[in-house]
Amino acid sequence: MKNKEYIAKVAEEAGISVEQAQKNLSALTEVMSGILQESNSIVISGFGTFEVKKKNERISVNPVTKKRLLIPPKLVVNFKPTTSTKEKLKEGERHE
Amino acid sequence: MKNKEYIAKVAEEAGISVEQAQKNLSALTEVMSGILQESNSIVISGFGTFEVKKKNERISVNPVTKKRLLIPPKLVVNFKPTTSTKEKLKEGERHE
Repeated sequence: MKNKEYIAKVAEEAGISVEQAQKNLSALTEVMSGILQESNSIVISGFGTFEVKKKNERISVNPVTKKRLLIPPKLVVNFKPTTSTKEKLKEGERHE
Repeated sequence: MKNKEYIAKVAEEAGISVEQAQKNLSALTEVMSGILQESNSIVISGFGTFEVKKKNERISVNPVTKKRLLIPPKLVVNFKPTTSTKEKLKEGERHE
């Protein structure tokens, strides 16, 4: 689902304008990016935890050419849903 | 960082009450869980994409006891940050 459809749904369910819903979302995601930049994790009650993990640099070897390639270190964002969110996902699966 | 500190920061930066910030966050995450339950992905502009992936059931063998164990299928939520979010994370790393 695209951002636009998501915002429309939030606006409808919360009884607010699309503009307001987009503003709320932007405020929340901007602060979240800022926190992830400094800290390494953030807990969202009833939703899940975002965690930044650093993957170290490593050497990859192409199995065919045997060429060695250095993969640079990178930061990945891990999202771990809460049990309640996981339960919701499972319910959705049952309805399919 | 805990949910409470995050909400306090959002409230401060957006110039709204803590109650309102928590309400906004709950509205957004509830709709998001609902969408992930039905659809399999959701794009948040300027932040990233959430995607639900199904991991099939598999048989795991304990290398010591050689006991075979059936790992049931499960749903995992994958979060892929946008390039802008990734850039922000890298900046944070440089400041450390």
